[in-house]
Amino acid sequence: MNKRYFTEWSAVMIENLYYAPATQGEFQIYDLGDIMLECGETLRGAKLAYRTFGTLNAQKSNAILVTTWFSGTGKVMEDVYVGAGHALDPERYFIVIVDQLGGGVSSSPQNTAGPQAMAKFPGLSIGDDVGAQQRLVTDLFGIERLALVVGGSMGGQQVYEWAVRYPEMVERAAPIAATARISLHQRVFVETLKEAITSDPRWNCGWYACGLDVRGGMDRMARIVAVLGWSAQFYQEERWRSVIGMSSLDDFINGVMKAYFEPMDPNVLLAQMHKWQRADVSRHTGGDLAKALTRISARMMIMPISHDQFFPPHECEDDCALVPGALYRVIQSPEGHMGLNGFEPGYMKQVDRYLSELLAA
Amino acid sequence: MNKRYFTEWSAVMIENLYYAPATQGEFQIYDLGDIMLECGETLRGAKLAYRTFGTLNAQKSNAILVTTWFSGTGKVMEDVYVGAGHALDPERYFIVIVDQLGGGVSSSPQNTAGPQAMAKFPGLSIGDDVGAQQRLVTDLFGIERLALVVGGSMGGQQVYEWAVRYPEMVERAAPIAATARISLHQRVFVETLKEAITSDPRWNCGWYACGLDVRGGMDRMARIVAVLGWSAQFYQEERWRSVIGMSSLDDFINGVMKAYFEPMDPNVLLAQMHKWQRADVSRHTGGDLAKALTRISARMMIMPISHDQFFPPHECEDDCALVPGALYRVIQSPEGHMGLNGFEPGYMKQVDRYLSELLAA
Repeated sequence: MNKRYFTEWSAVMIENLYYAPATQGEFQIYDLGDIMLECGETLRGAKLAYRTFGTLNAQKSNAILVTTWFSGTGKVMEDVYVGAGHALDPERYFIVIVDQLGGGVSSSPQNTAGPQAMAKFPGLSIGDDVGAQQRLVTDLFGIERLALVVGGSMGGQQVYEWAVRYPEMVERAAPIAATARISLHQRVFVETLKEAITSDPRWNCGWYACGLDVRGGMDRMARIVAVLGWSAQFYQEERWRSVIGMSSLDDFINGVMKAYFEPMDPNVLLAQMHKWQRADVSRHTGGDLAKALTRISARMMIMPISHDQFFPPHECEDDCALVPGALYRVIQSPEGHMGLNGFEPGYMKQVDRYLSELLAA
Repeated sequence: MNKRYFTEWSAVMIENLYYAPATQGEFQIYDLGDIMLECGETLRGAKLAYRTFGTLNAQKSNAILVTTWFSGTGKVMEDVYVGAGHALDPERYFIVIVDQLGGGVSSSPQNTAGPQAMAKFPGLSIGDDVGAQQRLVTDLFGIERLALVVGGSMGGQQVYEWAVRYPEMVERAAPIAATARISLHQRVFVETLKEAITSDPRWNCGWYACGLDVRGGMDRMARIVAVLGWSAQFYQEERWRSVIGMSSLDDFINGVMKAYFEPMDPNVLLAQMHKWQRADVSRHTGGDLAKALTRISARMMIMPISHDQFFPPHECEDDCALVPGALYRVIQSPEGHMGLNGFEPGYMKQVDRYLSELLAA
C-alpha cells in the first residue's frame, strides 16, 4: 500500500451515535489489521466488534458463536437470545456475539476514515465475515471447535458459511430463518430496498453529510421492508395492534418501521444488502449447492419461521434435504420474518426448546 | 359549475399514443356527461371506453360484462380472454369489455383537459367505475340483467362491487384473483408502488411534460411489482426463461417488467392505485363484510390463482364462505398473480373450463 496516498486523504467519517456504546451497550473491538476481501480489495485496519458472556471452560468446549442480521447489531442478540433461562445460557456456555462487518459497529462505511469511507467502502461478502470471525475465535480465544454457531436471517447465512467452510470447527449449527443460497426472488426484493435509498437525491452517491439527510429514501425502504418482513396474516389480524401495541396501520408504519431504520446509516444498510444479495455457499463448489451442503459435518438444526416471506419454510426444507443428518424444526410465528426480534413470548420459547434439543444432542 | 373559471384553464393534456387505437385496438366511447364521484367531486365530460363482440339476442339475456385490471386495458382482455374456443365466445354471447375510469383509455388524468387534468384528476373508486358501467349497460344497451360479470384483480374488485350493489342485475359473477375488500397487507404494498413514482423528482407533483420523464420512478415501481406480482417459485424455477423466454433475471426485469410499464402514464397508474387501495364492498354496509356479501344473489364462482401473492387463495376462500352458494375454483399457476396475462396455455384452459361450468349453471 502506498502510505503516501492513503494518508493524504482527509477523514470523512460520520459520527453516528446509534452505533456507539450508549445505544449498543458494551462491546469489545478485535483488531484484524488489513484483511483481503473476497472481492479482491483490502480492507485496511479492519475491526470486529464482539461481546462475550459466560466463561470459556478449560477444554474450550463450551463456546457458542452468535451472528447478527441485516440492520441488527449484537445488542438485539444479547437482549433477546442470551441470558439465564435461555438455551444460550452464560452459566453453561461461553457465548460470543459478533457484529457483521459493514453493520455499523464493526468496520463499516460510516466509521472508516480515508479512502474507504462511506461510498468508497468496499463490497463485502458473507465469506468475509466468516473469515474474520474464524480469526477472532482462533487467534483471540484459541478455540478450535465451536459447540454451536447460531444466527438468524443474514446471521443464518453466516452459519451456513461456517458449516460449509470450516466443517471441522463446527460441532453444531443452527441457521434460523435463512437459506444456504439466496433465492432469485429475494435478490429482486433486496434490489428494491437498495433503489429506495439510492434514488433519494440527498443520498448523493453515498456522500451525505448526515444519515438523516436521506430520510426520504430510508422511509420508503422501511415501508418496502414492511411488505415482506411481516406476514399477510400479521396485517390481516391487525397484530401491529395486539402484538406491537400500535394504534393504527399508519401508526405502525411510522412508529415502528420508519422509526426503527431512521437512526441508522444508509451506507451501512447498503453494505449489508450487498452481502445479503450474494450469500451463496455453493460458490465454494462451483455453483453445486448439493456438493457444498454435503461438506457439512456439524449436527445442523434448520429452523425456518412458519410465515416467513423472505426465507419461506419450503426453501429451508430443500436445504435440509441436502445437509447430512440435519434436523428440521419450524418455528410457528404469524409475525413472519420479523418474528426474529422476539416480539411475542411464544417465539423465544420455541427457539429455546429447539436449541436446547440441539445442544443436548 | 362556473363555466367562466372552468374554461379559462388551458388544455394540458398529454398525447400518449400508448392509449390510442393504434396500440389499444378499436374501441368505442360512451359519453357519460358529468358524473358525481364517490369522493364528492364531479368528473366533467366523463367518457367510458368499451368494445363489444358478438350479438345481443332479442331477450337481451346473453350479455357478459368484462372488466379490466391495474395497468391493463380492454386490449389484453380481448386478446387473452375472448374469442372462439374460449368460454367467452362471441358466437354465443354479447361481450362488452369496459376500460376502467382513470385507466388511460376511458377518462383519465392524461386525456382530460382543463382543471381536472393530470395531477388535478379526481380520486376515483371502484364504485365510480361500476356506477358508470351500470349506465353503459342499461342506458346504451337496454340490458336489465347480465348473464355474467367477470374480471381479474382490480377487475375482480369491480365484479364484487357489481354483485353487492346491483344484485338483481347480475345472474353470474366471477372474480378472478381478487377479494371483496383489499387486505391491509396489500394496502401497504400498493403504497410502496405509489412512493416509487412520486419520489422521482421529475414526477414533479404530477406535472411532467411527458410520462417518459418519470422513467426512473416507473422503473423502480416495475421492480417492486415484480417482487409480489410473480411467485417465489417463478423465480426459483427460472420461469422467466422457460415461460417468458428471457435470457437472465436482469433481462426479464428490464425487458418485461420495465418495458411493460414504460409507455404508460404515471398519473394513470397512480389514479388506479388510489382505487385499488380502497376497494371494499363493505362500505355499503358500514364496514360489515359478511353483511355486504350476503346481499349477493348472483351465482358466484370465486377463482383465486394458486401462487398469488397479491390476493392469496386463503383470503379468497374467506370471502367464499360469506357469499351464499358461491363456488370455489383455484387456478393452478406458478406464475402467481401475473398468470392473469395468460403467459402459459395451461392458465386459460383452466379459466375457460371453470367459466364454462359457471355459464352452464
